Amino acid sequence: MSTPFADPATLTHAELEEGTVFAPRFDAHGLITAIAVDATTSEVLMLAHMNAEALALTVETGEAHYYSRSRKTLWRKGETSGEVQKLVELRTDCDQDAILLRVEQTGRGAACHTGRRNCFYRMLGADGALADAGVPRLFDPKDVYDKKGG
Amino acid sequence: MSTPFADPATLTHAELEEGTVFAPRFDAHGLITAIAVDATTSEVLMLAHMNAEALALTVETGEAHYYSRSRKTLWRKGETSGEVQKLVELRTDCDQDAILLRVEQTGRGAACHTGRRNCFYRMLGADGALADAGVPRLFDPKDVYDKKGG
Repeated sequence: MSTPFADPATLTHAELEEGTVFAPRFDAHGLITAIAVDATTSEVLMLAHMNAEALALTVETGEAHYYSRSRKTLWRKGETSGEVQKLVELRTDCDQDAILLRVEQTGRGAACHTGRRNCFYRMLGADGALADAGVPRLFDPKDVYDKKGG
Repeated sequence: MSTPFADPATLTHAELEEGTVFAPRFDAHGLITAIAVDATTSEVLMLAHMNAEALALTVETGEAHYYSRSRKTLWRKGETSGEVQKLVELRTDCDQDAILLRVEQTGRGAACHTGRRNCFYRMLGADGALADAGVPRLFDPKDVYDKKGG
């Protein structure tokens, strides 16, 4: 598909890293990594991927869109769950191969498809096992999804 | 290489998402995405990638190690710059294909190779151009690197 974004190959290294041209560096699969954080608390909510269409729709609509690699489809966050992410600010990183979305997490406030506020609810213990990190669960996914989704 | 981590293919979907077995899902290139955040403020510092060796060394040494895709080499964060990241806590996400490092950013406090506190120093404006987001620059990269690195 065509993309409304500048081609990073047309920029110098300095322009890519210090310039004002937004030229997202999609990978060989046409995807870029996106981190969604709570705009108020900076808490990392989730990590996902976007294709050019998802990124363009996120900017145009002000609501986070992603590309599901497992389902191979564009995905408006919250289309099933109601957990829409309203875009507050979009940032890119130094070499423009990552996107940071500062969002307002609407709905029940659960970014994760497991019903938890964020996806990073387990921490690695000294024994090498994962332990619960105490991230609250705000809905039961059985009540929301037929299958895994967001 | 062999890895000290469990093979996610041996886990059920429920075990992967709700269990206590740490089974990082490296991609086809043997990499997993890692987000480093400030352990105190939750500010996202950077996004990078780890191979199994980098992840194992991060856990063993308590200092963040990554794998540089451009340089195709293991990379101890701060080995050139002194900007070592001390691991406070390591988390994984629901489907274990992302790692969250809560770190203490030592040195000058600059996670980004541009000398800034974090890599997300530009935000997208309504005009489609990037604008400076006001992330402080804590060193001049010319004084620190011969070439791009971290």
